[in-house]
Amino acid sequence: MSDTAKTAIPPAHTIGVFVSGFGGLTVLRALVARLPDARFAFIGDTARLPYGSKSRRTIARYAAQSAQFLVREQGAEFLVIACNTASALALDAIQEAVPVPVLGVIEPGAEAARAASRTGDVLVIATDATVQSHAYAAACRARGLRALEMACPLLVPLVEEGWTTCGGAEAACATRESSQQAKVTAEVIRIYLAELTAEAAAQGLKPDTLVLGCTHYPLLRPLIERAVPAGMRVIDSAEATAEAAVRLFGPHDSEKDSPKTQFPPTQLRCFATDSVEKFERLGSRFLNQPTGKVELVDLGG
Amino acid sequence: MSDTAKTAIPPAHTIGVFVSGFGGLTVLRALVARLPDARFAFIGDTARLPYGSKSRRTIARYAAQSAQFLVREQGAEFLVIACNTASALALDAIQEAVPVPVLGVIEPGAEAARAASRTGDVLVIATDATVQSHAYAAACRARGLRALEMACPLLVPLVEEGWTTCGGAEAACATRESSQQAKVTAEVIRIYLAELTAEAAAQGLKPDTLVLGCTHYPLLRPLIERAVPAGMRVIDSAEATAEAAVRLFGPHDSEKDSPKTQFPPTQLRCFATDSVEKFERLGSRFLNQPTGKVELVDLGG
Repeated sequence: MSDTAKTAIPPAHTIGVFVSGFGGLTVLRALVARLPDARFAFIGDTARLPYGSKSRRTIARYAAQSAQFLVREQGAEFLVIACNTASALALDAIQEAVPVPVLGVIEPGAEAARAASRTGDVLVIATDATVQSHAYAAACRARGLRALEMACPLLVPLVEEGWTTCGGAEAACATRESSQQAKVTAEVIRIYLAELTAEAAAQGLKPDTLVLGCTHYPLLRPLIERAVPAGMRVIDSAEATAEAAVRLFGPHDSEKDSPKTQFPPTQLRCFATDSVEKFERLGSRFLNQPTGKVELVDLGG
Repeated sequence: MSDTAKTAIPPAHTIGVFVSGFGGLTVLRALVARLPDARFAFIGDTARLPYGSKSRRTIARYAAQSAQFLVREQGAEFLVIACNTASALALDAIQEAVPVPVLGVIEPGAEAARAASRTGDVLVIATDATVQSHAYAAACRARGLRALEMACPLLVPLVEEGWTTCGGAEAACATRESSQQAKVTAEVIRIYLAELTAEAAAQGLKPDTLVLGCTHYPLLRPLIERAVPAGMRVIDSAEATAEAAVRLFGPHDSEKDSPKTQFPPTQLRCFATDSVEKFERLGSRFLNQPTGKVELVDLGG
């Protein structure tokens, strides 16, 4: 047994994963790959998405309801808040609402940025609410980094519309339409990043790291990596959070290096507050495998 | 007095206007221009937007709550549902929930399409939920028209992001950035319309009319008019609904031809379920004048 074994959870234990919408499935995918023996209860609060445009008070209330569902009704013993907006605005409220350890995505993302950056200056792209919370800036500042944040509200709908077809470096576009669609997405990314890097230069920053501060953005990673200045590191907060979860809840070291991407369907229960069909359809794209049957749940909203 | 006077309402009466988000302000603007002596109570259910991606059951529940607030607490004697999705999916539920006349946007839009089309074939662009309801297709079919509908989920976020700067035929772009942003929006519109017109041709339709089946889309009208085939008429359901409201609730004929775009602020009370600051900021863009103070209201969601 390694010395990390004392924090490992037995295989039968349940990790609750909460997201406001579909993006959090990128975190779930990364978690499942690293913790193949854990049981996952996942809830997407799809009736009330997107959280990115809502106030702190509303987000805290909604997120606490989902957290309580995962702990009280699904027996989750650990929670991962796979949503940047809820992590930024409601982590305290969630921690107060449930008696189990809660891990958000902001701190792991900032920690990965600290490990990656040499200049100490980082850029963060996220939803409007995450940016307005300045949670990444605070988490970066606590690590001696300077962070410049920018909201990119068009990126989530572009991902949900699937205009990312040519994103994979390996894949050529299947059709002329998908090529044109991916070009639009690439141009939107270029406009946002041009604005952000110009602002960074105006502030005298020398950023060498870009944090993807929204769980939808990993699906745009290939397009984003082509758009950033040469040498800039791109940090995926979904991956960073999964790695932090392994450190907190995970198995011993010998298993860490053999991530499995397949897992028995019985180990994963998916819930949504609305549109289970849409969840199954979009969820499969994010999870890179079928979600299985998604169960409808009413949180009283 | 004209013969329409019997349906006119005295100036002090209150028209309730409900929207899920900000788009409905285009309908409010058109209503205020035509009914300058009416009193308006307006509610934006911003805590739970967008409706376009939600299920019929959820939309009906949310919309009924807003309708009851307008009637019971604000004394509205008529309701205008300035939201295509709620009109498409929840008009029956709203009519059951309140004891006053209710006007949606679908029927006026379809009626305007009937008046405009010579071929009898029309195109409709709208949100995903509106399209899936096939409410426009049904309303068109009832008028002897054939309608082909398509969801355009990126257009609402593009409007809300303000990437429409060069839209006005009168306005040159203020900056290079806004020019590039408007080009992205124009390209998104081109891609959607190319797909829609190709599908229409494949079905043997000869459309000569395009219905803007979402209250956000009037802000894209100049860009859309440049993108449609020559000779195609563009129908704005916000305008069509305001005209129908005037016929139902409006003053006598002599006043109809002198719309006023200014009105005393006391005649308009705006409520929102979240983000009143965002409502005031975005609302002003849609309304083309300041919204005044927006009051926060909790509908229990």
